[in-house]
Amino acid sequence: MTNDLTSAPVGVIGLGSMGMGIARALLDASLDVVGFDISAEACRYFAAAGGRVGNSPADVARECDVVLIVVINARQVEGALFNAGGVVETLHKGGLVVQCATVAPSFARVLGERLAEAGLGLLDAPISGGSTKARNGQLTVMASGNQTCFEQAASILDAMAEKVYRLGNEPGIGSSVKLVNQHLAGVHIAAAAEAVALGIRMGLDPEILYEVITHSAGNSWMFENRVPHILKGDYTPFSAVDIFVKDLGIVHATGSELTLPLPIASSALQQFTAASAAGHGREDDSAVIKVYEHLAGLKLPPKNKD
Amino acid sequence: MTNDLTSAPVGVIGLGSMGMGIARALLDASLDVVGFDISAEACRYFAAAGGRVGNSPADVARECDVVLIVVINARQVEGALFNAGGVVETLHKGGLVVQCATVAPSFARVLGERLAEAGLGLLDAPISGGSTKARNGQLTVMASGNQTCFEQAASILDAMAEKVYRLGNEPGIGSSVKLVNQHLAGVHIAAAAEAVALGIRMGLDPEILYEVITHSAGNSWMFENRVPHILKGDYTPFSAVDIFVKDLGIVHATGSELTLPLPIASSALQQFTAASAAGHGREDDSAVIKVYEHLAGLKLPPKNKD
Repeated sequence: MTNDLTSAPVGVIGLGSMGMGIARALLDASLDVVGFDISAEACRYFAAAGGRVGNSPADVARECDVVLIVVINARQVEGALFNAGGVVETLHKGGLVVQCATVAPSFARVLGERLAEAGLGLLDAPISGGSTKARNGQLTVMASGNQTCFEQAASILDAMAEKVYRLGNEPGIGSSVKLVNQHLAGVHIAAAAEAVALGIRMGLDPEILYEVITHSAGNSWMFENRVPHILKGDYTPFSAVDIFVKDLGIVHATGSELTLPLPIASSALQQFTAASAAGHGREDDSAVIKVYEHLAGLKLPPKNKD
Repeated sequence: MTNDLTSAPVGVIGLGSMGMGIARALLDASLDVVGFDISAEACRYFAAAGGRVGNSPADVARECDVVLIVVINARQVEGALFNAGGVVETLHKGGLVVQCATVAPSFARVLGERLAEAGLGLLDAPISGGSTKARNGQLTVMASGNQTCFEQAASILDAMAEKVYRLGNEPGIGSSVKLVNQHLAGVHIAAAAEAVALGIRMGLDPEILYEVITHSAGNSWMFENRVPHILKGDYTPFSAVDIFVKDLGIVHATGSELTLPLPIASSALQQFTAASAAGHGREDDSAVIKVYEHLAGLKLPPKNKD
């Protein structure tokens, strides 16, 4: 009875840049959306955009069959579901939780077991693409869970994503693929910053360097996307340094769980941690290059250089 | 008198996979090419392909206006030019050396000064693209040198390259840009290997992982190009592990010269060094993933899997 299930209201817990974008994309698709965020301002903003707002995760889940959790980390996922006033208190048996945060695969697996004990399904569905794609319903979703979960979430996934990868039947697989992506994304940003720092130190024009590298074998999606922020001296956060402190921290923890040394990711994690330590944690992740400014007096392109 | 100069024979010192490709691409462009390699077999092969062969670098340079040096490292560049029987003994004043190896920018700058003292020009012209593109005259050349040098080399660059970046007037700039490219290329291969190792350890199907990552923000030119070698279990060298031991070694040395810490490149260098230590130095650079096989018992896709 997929249609009946998804025609019920959809809950969205977490109305940050990603959650707000998803919730509004669901509204655009004519779904009935009930949102919640610990920020009253975010709730007001969503209500002004035409959404309905609950008083707590439990209040949202009471009237929904499917609840999306779009928060920043595992601790917040845990809290939204299991704290007093959490989703699990009210979501009816057979209801579905769609968890979209980047979390450790081991956390996602245990979460699936705990929700199953409460009679609830879990779609392990980390998202990728940034806030603009979230707003436009064009995210990439790296999802795993059983057939029933995918059916329950079908119209929601359609509305929020351009591409849904169905990666397997068990929670944890989606989070594993997302983790590999974050490993590479984080390393590539740190590498781009280091390579541009080296280029500047060697006296190269970073604009010319960008032109050559983006047409050469040294290119990466992240080099192409993030180095322009450095060239403009504009560190307005698209995605923040502290996101990679967190995500590469999960990579590190997972490597430890699995007894797998990960020296490349580890060196990138240390660079993001250093940038955060120097006060740049909430700036754009390309600000990891400022480590070289602090340590080595590197002269970076000034703001509004054009 | 550009045309007169370039209608004279062109010398190519070094007939390995890159040098042979370039020399044959020059023949295809109807240039008169005289080659030399320390390997008699390479010389015979080039002669069979229609090239002329000299007995030494000096013997080649005697009849040329322009000599390309397509060898593996700075020591070989030095030897081909300045050893007994080297190019500098016979290349006439006003002649041009085109150095194509990946070398330290400081080496390229000093080389320019030494050749200038001998009355010779230097085009600092590292190449990128691999042996197939070399053979087809489709390389990318990252070049710096004065206007005269570029004019002398014009028809040769046309014949060997799809794209020639003119990066500045002094030797060292071309090598600097190439070094940034090699930094990124090396880090990206080591990161791709580490990320795939993590994925396999988490139980993911590496084929599916490849499909998702190549369509996500974690992608890089090198991930896309090298991971298929791992998936096929085919480590036939396209470019060898030891090339990155060398090139990231130059990155490291240049960072030291400039007092710039490069922790990401350093971790990648250690992984290639470990792979070389374990006996994989002459395998494809994607064999850097075998470090995880040795250290952590990682089960890699077997050869001829499908």
